[in-house]
Amino acid sequence: MSAITLNEFGGPENLTESTVQRPEPGPGEVLIEVAAAALNRADLMQRQGHYPPPPGASDILGLEVSGRIAALGPQVDNWSVGDEVCALLSGGGYAEFAVAPTTQLFHVPETVGLVDSAALPEVACTVVSNLDMTAHLQPGELALLHGGSSGIGTFGIQFARARGAIVATTARTADKLTLCAGLGATVLIDYTDDDFVQRVQEKGGADVILDMVGAKYLSRNVDALAPDGRLVVIGLQGGATAEIDLGKLLRIRGTLAATNLRGRPTTGPHSKADVVARTTELAWPLIESRQIAPVVGTTFPMSEAAAAHEYLAGGDAVGKILLVR
Amino acid sequence: MSAITLNEFGGPENLTESTVQRPEPGPGEVLIEVAAAALNRADLMQRQGHYPPPPGASDILGLEVSGRIAALGPQVDNWSVGDEVCALLSGGGYAEFAVAPTTQLFHVPETVGLVDSAALPEVACTVVSNLDMTAHLQPGELALLHGGSSGIGTFGIQFARARGAIVATTARTADKLTLCAGLGATVLIDYTDDDFVQRVQEKGGADVILDMVGAKYLSRNVDALAPDGRLVVIGLQGGATAEIDLGKLLRIRGTLAATNLRGRPTTGPHSKADVVARTTELAWPLIESRQIAPVVGTTFPMSEAAAAHEYLAGGDAVGKILLVR
Repeated sequence: MSAITLNEFGGPENLTESTVQRPEPGPGEVLIEVAAAALNRADLMQRQGHYPPPPGASDILGLEVSGRIAALGPQVDNWSVGDEVCALLSGGGYAEFAVAPTTQLFHVPETVGLVDSAALPEVACTVVSNLDMTAHLQPGELALLHGGSSGIGTFGIQFARARGAIVATTARTADKLTLCAGLGATVLIDYTDDDFVQRVQEKGGADVILDMVGAKYLSRNVDALAPDGRLVVIGLQGGATAEIDLGKLLRIRGTLAATNLRGRPTTGPHSKADVVARTTELAWPLIESRQIAPVVGTTFPMSEAAAAHEYLAGGDAVGKILLVR
Repeated sequence: MSAITLNEFGGPENLTESTVQRPEPGPGEVLIEVAAAALNRADLMQRQGHYPPPPGASDILGLEVSGRIAALGPQVDNWSVGDEVCALLSGGGYAEFAVAPTTQLFHVPETVGLVDSAALPEVACTVVSNLDMTAHLQPGELALLHGGSSGIGTFGIQFARARGAIVATTARTADKLTLCAGLGATVLIDYTDDDFVQRVQEKGGADVILDMVGAKYLSRNVDALAPDGRLVVIGLQGGATAEIDLGKLLRIRGTLAATNLRGRPTTGPHSKADVVARTTELAWPLIESRQIAPVVGTTFPMSEAAAAHEYLAGGDAVGKILLVR
């Protein structure tokens, strides 16, 4: 089959189209004929050699796809060849075919369609696992979502709003904040000239913060929390090591969680299967009733994966970037 | 009435018996004729001027008492004069009479008796709020409880064990560890000559850690966590400010919570009323069925509060210290 492979770790120019062996679905897995794959920041890190795939995963990039089931592995019930699905992968999405366990499959929502639903698995699972399963976001609470115009941000704003929360968000330009406002964010913070701690504390502090900056924001995120607030770090774009004032955290009874999706086990406690089940339960009805729509900012042919990587790294992207076959 | 008051902030010698105005129970409160009060480390800090009582609280020391209800304030149902109770207080326990909201009352368990039940409210509420409500300890999980021979430690070991967890604990002497073993701890770590990180990682890491050391242990506590582990800091005996490696936390999907009981609101979300209700539901049946017994290490007459403070500060105490009237 055709796939985008990596000659060596480094820049986007190392991504080239090649012919590789088609994967075989194992027990409990299906083979998907890929319609589209979506980009994730983790792909950029993996391309540079900083994020090795977990043991047993494909070394082809790509953590999510949409497509049609082309074959069933052994012990697969409830799914049929021809079903339109999108899937959370451990890797292998930048290809003509990819393999996924059935516990990581979603039906393609009619409201989204086959190609665009490639934009759903990572953001939906990330948002549900962090805002709901880790931070237990409640109706009426204030959620601060950093990077509101990103794939996770655009989905997170809609999800938090649909769950009855008030949404504050940070972004870098007026255009991006306008997009966030359209999705339901009501506290709009241009982080280049506004202090998110002050803006959020004017509203009583954030009950939940979703952050991908890490060290650089840690102290300010703690300052922005409301009593009993929960800060969830899902990325380290601003570094990993920081000082924390446990006294401050203790006085407000604050929680700091740091999570990742890719490292979760396939099944069992805290697994991807758990996350997919909860995401299907909470987010899919909201997508099917059009309370949440994925924001697809840009689409590239899969053969232009290198250009798509350059675009994502450039920082001007909004929403998700798709590679379409 | 008689009470132990503080002439000025400082050493134990400033605690003296005086005659003060008897408090009046307000709406939803009861007046308790105190049988015994229990000591907490917070009392030592408050005596030194480092832990001011929350607004509206008595400036007399004492966060928990047992006794008989002597009078009802307005709007009190379900409780009667003469009822034997123990209570979580915002202050005022070192006295002949103390006032408590009914949402902070427990019935005295027959298995414990009137005097010793003064040892229950703070430790039971601290253990239940942190191990259950914050850390969601599950059967079969490994809980590491630092300071196993303390009031919180002795109750925590029994509670975690009764909830089906495996208990690791740290203490300073063989005698203290023997006590912990008798309460149900099976991984016994003398922290003066043993590395708790290594001992706990041999068992796959701690799913839950309850810590009162703070900064000094932060990095090692993170190292001791299992994947999806939860570290709860409830004290800062080893300082407040420390470096944290968010990358480490993210790789194991770890959670760091820091909590306090005294600062919680009386009612509403995350309140003392919530904690008392959950403690009554989870811990009281275990006390009544003798699966948990409070460990009362030492008893002083209330008039010797100064000596009791010296004893607690000395570090040789096990379990709770009571001041009996």
